[in-house]
Amino acid sequence: MSVLIAPKTTVFEATSAACRASGAINLGQGFPDGCGPLAVREAAARAVIDGPHHYPPMAGLPELRVAVADHYARHLGLAIEPMDGVTVTSGATEALACAIFALVEPGDAVVIIEPAYDAYAPLVRRAGGVVRAIEVRPPDWRIDRQELARAAEGARLLIVNDPVNPCGTRLHADDRAALADAVLANDAWLLCDEVWEWVLDPGVAHASMLADARLAARTVKVGSAGKIFALTGWKVGWLCAAPALGARLRAVHQFLTFTTPPSLQMAVARGLADDAGWLAAMRAEIAGRRARLAAGLREAGYAVLPSDATWFLNVDLAASGVAMDDAAFNARLIADHGVAGIPVSAFYENDGPRHILRLCHAKAAATLDAAVARLGAAL
Amino acid sequence: MSVLIAPKTTVFEATSAACRASGAINLGQGFPDGCGPLAVREAAARAVIDGPHHYPPMAGLPELRVAVADHYARHLGLAIEPMDGVTVTSGATEALACAIFALVEPGDAVVIIEPAYDAYAPLVRRAGGVVRAIEVRPPDWRIDRQELARAAEGARLLIVNDPVNPCGTRLHADDRAALADAVLANDAWLLCDEVWEWVLDPGVAHASMLADARLAARTVKVGSAGKIFALTGWKVGWLCAAPALGARLRAVHQFLTFTTPPSLQMAVARGLADDAGWLAAMRAEIAGRRARLAAGLREAGYAVLPSDATWFLNVDLAASGVAMDDAAFNARLIADHGVAGIPVSAFYENDGPRHILRLCHAKAAATLDAAVARLGAAL
Ligand SMILES: CSCCC(=O)C(=O)O
Ligand SMILES: CSCCC(=O)C(=O)O
Repeated sequence: MSVLIAPKTTVFEATSAACRASGAINLGQGFPDGCGPLAVREAAARAVIDGPHHYPPMAGLPELRVAVADHYARHLGLAIEPMDGVTVTSGATEALACAIFALVEPGDAVVIIEPAYDAYAPLVRRAGGVVRAIEVRPPDWRIDRQELARAAEGARLLIVNDPVNPCGTRLHADDRAALADAVLANDAWLLCDEVWEWVLDPGVAHASMLADARLAARTVKVGSAGKIFALTGWKVGWLCAAPALGARLRAVHQFLTFTTPPSLQMAVARGLADDAGWLAAMRAEIAGRRARLAAGLREAGYAVLPSDATWFLNVDLAASGVAMDDAAFNARLIADHGVAGIPVSAFYENDGPRHILRLCHAKAAATLDAAVARLGAAL
Repeated sequence: MSVLIAPKTTVFEATSAACRASGAINLGQGFPDGCGPLAVREAAARAVIDGPHHYPPMAGLPELRVAVADHYARHLGLAIEPMDGVTVTSGATEALACAIFALVEPGDAVVIIEPAYDAYAPLVRRAGGVVRAIEVRPPDWRIDRQELARAAEGARLLIVNDPVNPCGTRLHADDRAALADAVLANDAWLLCDEVWEWVLDPGVAHASMLADARLAARTVKVGSAGKIFALTGWKVGWLCAAPALGARLRAVHQFLTFTTPPSLQMAVARGLADDAGWLAAMRAEIAGRRARLAAGLREAGYAVLPSDATWFLNVDLAASGVAMDDAAFNARLIADHGVAGIPVSAFYENDGPRHILRLCHAKAAATLDAAVARLGAAL
């Protein structure tokens, strides 16, 4: 079987393209209304004019590597080596690709948890790996212990996303513990995609799997400035890992993108170092938007699933009286009602639920209200 | 044998790190003094403040795709489909990785011409391919027809760099023709790394292999804004290919980086569209710097090889009376004389010449003069 990635456009791009073409309100691809702290953007604008203009160190500007390590030490209690433990990447997608190409050899089994971000499986196969998917289902999205044990047996790598896209939830502490046990029992690597670590309702705290000392030498943590600063176009991400593992990641990174614009790196470093202002405000805004969309949808007759993380919430179409599957309903939403979500079935390669629609709530109030009116009309 | 990329730092990064640590003048890694047209940087600064801030289309901003296609139509006579034929990448390194992962399957033979950029072979192996290297040697760097025929037999892909780094030259027209024939005879793909297409002495013209109609459906051309605008930190590159091939490239690109900062893309689009001012000035400056370094080195006693392209020229150490090999001499230059080049032996995986040192001439006059003084002292 070919390991090449077949020409099929990711559901996020396809949905945004459909919205651009038709003018539909785009609650599909995850990007917010708004554009991050002005001070961060101003720092980037200055650097674009005054420099640095040329290649920074391949692993990232020292300022940013230190800022990432400090940020995680302060907020998550992590002890990351700033210089050898952080590798700056051109967005979290590059970070994922880099880690997978660094860790997966032909024939290696890799566990993913579906619903899963749609880059994982194609990258694992392109690296020569064999995907073993375990499935979690709404409304609680819990991991079945036996299914996990079966899939993880002899696996080289487990890929874990927490907070969880598209679920809009965080992993249950018991499931995190079970995943840690499975990693250790199989002497596997762990790739933690924690890009949503700050996209949380206030009062809710993220717990990184990298905090578990038993996992420290075998874990790669992925972070994203685009998510943290609500600047998805910036494409600045990073990989955190123990230095020996970091060397392996950098060997790949140097040939995937080599490096990332230093102007944007400098600005992200400043923003991370000075997070007193924008972080709390951003979280309050997220919670307000989530609550507004959820309330509007409930009033319109939708069954809204619980969520407290990411820019997304889900509606249960079956429980809302929709007879179509999620993909067909979403296509109808775009064509007939001028609004789009993402069918959660797109996050499963095999069979998963076909009655859940993901909606991005990270939008201005007027946009959310207009979307709710259109979604209501479709019921 | 493992296809993983072993933790070994690219020679460019290692040399720049040594220069940063010791304060040596860095004529190693290729980046120029200077920082591109101010109008281009100002356009980027405005976009960082005013937007777009979020994901552009995955294949790149339409403005930039059109600007790339127009630019090549005007200057190189190429007929590239702007929307489906151009894919914007996060630098030319991503473009190379993307093309290799899109085209090379396990077991496929891939021809590279050594001296070769040090990303090609590791990426080919990571994709599962088998590297078949043919070697060219100074002073003329010509391709042996029999060696080419042997290596290309049954190959899936040929990777061709023109203008040629580290040679500082352009491919001979006969060699280009022989490469085209080898691609066609073997029904292979052609990956043309043409990032140096504008880094040419005035009066010299680049000829793209994509201009050959027989190759149009099977050729991928790589370009780089970092080289064109002398802004190596920007990391904006692109892939040009026929639409059907482009779809295959995008399928990989969407999972390698997904997209590239739209602020920088907008600025590059403007710069490409309005190339009346900076392009001629830049080429004149390049020629002046090349001539200055060459003259200084000759006066200091170095045997300088001919060159008319890229930011590099080469000296023949043996003919200059140096008894050490290039790597040892370069290490001594850094340690004892405060100046660095790149040993050209680093561009060969097996045996190649060990008496050629590459020097970057794209520097301010004072830097070149100081470097010449130090290089002279080492003779
Ligand atoms: C790279 S586009 C996907 C953005 C995102 O994280 C999502 O919509 O789930
Ligand atoms: C990505 S660093 C290499 C820059 C360059 O093209 C060179 O020095 O040859």
